[in-house]
Amino acid sequence: MNTLIESDKVIGTEVYGPDEAHVGEVKRLVLEKTGGKVAHAVLGFGGFLGMGQDYYPIPWSKLTYNEALGGFQIDITKDQLDEAPRYDQASEYDWSDDNNRRIYDYYGVQPYW
Amino acid sequence: MNTLIESDKVIGTEVYGPDEAHVGEVKRLVLEKTGGKVAHAVLGFGGFLGMGQDYYPIPWSKLTYNEALGGFQIDITKDQLDEAPRYDQASEYDWSDDNNRRIYDYYGVQPYW
Repeated sequence: MNTLIESDKVIGTEVYGPDEAHVGEVKRLVLEKTGGKVAHAVLGFGGFLGMGQDYYPIPWSKLTYNEALGGFQIDITKDQLDEAPRYDQASEYDWSDDNNRRIYDYYGVQPYW
Repeated sequence: MNTLIESDKVIGTEVYGPDEAHVGEVKRLVLEKTGGKVAHAVLGFGGFLGMGQDYYPIPWSKLTYNEALGGFQIDITKDQLDEAPRYDQASEYDWSDDNNRRIYDYYGVQPYW
């Protein structure tokens, strides 16, 4: 059994919601520097032809690969995303520990730290 | 303190040896699917203008960011790389659990699993 996957096969992969509707794609990963744990996948969502997209950091544990869909599925509803932490594609996100915690809190995910 | 880093700032970053000589750059990351742990950074090394490069999977814990060098430093010598597990840029690596273990064994790194 292969438990490993290349980052190339994660970044750019489509993401689907609980209802299997397409919601966006993985734009980047965010790692813990020392331990090398993936804290978040950043999901690109909305905009027109990729312009003006909002970027949503999602705790890694919320993504499950769905063979049938050929992409990741998240158990996050559109309503949850409406108020979720996000940043504009063109800006830098402040990856402070406080913001990290805020994202995990928002989604009710047990922090890994 | 910010303990997080974006994958964009890891992939493409230059890598230096113990003697601060340039050895290559990070080409991709390899993740544990479920836990989201970065198992390896894949280092591109050799070749001409990036063609015919060999790719070396290196346990993540062997990389340390060096502010002064502006890149990662690895405590791996050129001699160690001579016999190290590698694959050709153009081919797919078999990311089996056996190969994963083989890489950790080669560098004498305590497995994370």
